[in-house]
Amino acid sequence: MEFEPRLRDRTRWSTGDACSLARLLDVLSTKTTFLVVRECFYGTSRFEDFTARLGASAPAVSRALKQLEAAQIVSRVPYQESGQRARDEYRLTPAGEDLLPVFLSLVQWGDKYLQDGAPPLSFVDAATQRPLGVRVTDDLDSPAAGPDDIQVRWNAPRRTG
Amino acid sequence: MEFEPRLRDRTRWSTGDACSLARLLDVLSTKTTFLVVRECFYGTSRFEDFTARLGASAPAVSRALKQLEAAQIVSRVPYQESGQRARDEYRLTPAGEDLLPVFLSLVQWGDKYLQDGAPPLSFVDAATQRPLGVRVTDDLDSPAAGPDDIQVRWNAPRRTG
Repeated sequence: MEFEPRLRDRTRWSTGDACSLARLLDVLSTKTTFLVVRECFYGTSRFEDFTARLGASAPAVSRALKQLEAAQIVSRVPYQESGQRARDEYRLTPAGEDLLPVFLSLVQWGDKYLQDGAPPLSFVDAATQRPLGVRVTDDLDSPAAGPDDIQVRWNAPRRTG
Repeated sequence: MEFEPRLRDRTRWSTGDACSLARLLDVLSTKTTFLVVRECFYGTSRFEDFTARLGASAPAVSRALKQLEAAQIVSRVPYQESGQRARDEYRLTPAGEDLLPVFLSLVQWGDKYLQDGAPPLSFVDAATQRPLGVRVTDDLDSPAAGPDDIQVRWNAPRRTG
């Protein structure tokens, strides 16, 4: 990266607590929080499904969901099954769906550097069937793929559950 | 996201420990680790500059750098100033530079949702002077911007240090 002249002496400036990345990491503060966002992209919405799929404790999932709700990344929607008490489902808000590049850029790096063979899942464009990825670009006007444009495929033979 | 038929019952599959995102989060396991990567993109390379700029403890920075080195995200390069003992600088490897979309997607979300006014820094394409951002796309053949294509500008009046 090239810095404008007054930024070239790195001892003279710091973004401190104003850094956008640091602020987001205060929300996504645990691995469980990131994984809850991942699960939301996969369509998981009920509390006990988060704990079952993540193998995480109820308090850890509860803390993560509270943090995500406070940051307006997920919202709660009531539902009731017959004979049961009313409960809440958790869904990504539009701001939560805007985390798609965060989700996919982490997946993309792990796919490339942390897998021996094929990664467990592939993400393709539902219309073109071509693999999706995350790019850094100054072409921010042309349409980008959102969660609804993505088709998920299973690559590996392993299954659990 | 739309799932291929055998993935539609989410109780029947899980990526577990094979998840690429989970694996990367085991490397980027603390806020300090993410911030050390950010500092590497900003050109910080010496141990005492990481601790000074992050306001982090030496053990926390040391742990983060060890983790990043073990994951081949940073490498150590020896340097020696006259009259001083030989020491190491830390630099991003090509794999480390591939974390640019992770870095910028986190910044982009924080810029949009966690700032009242302008964020402290802007990232523009050095050639076109247009703002850079991260997009999800199936056009993975056209050139993407890398760290060397980025110019960093200061937006806010605050300074520290």
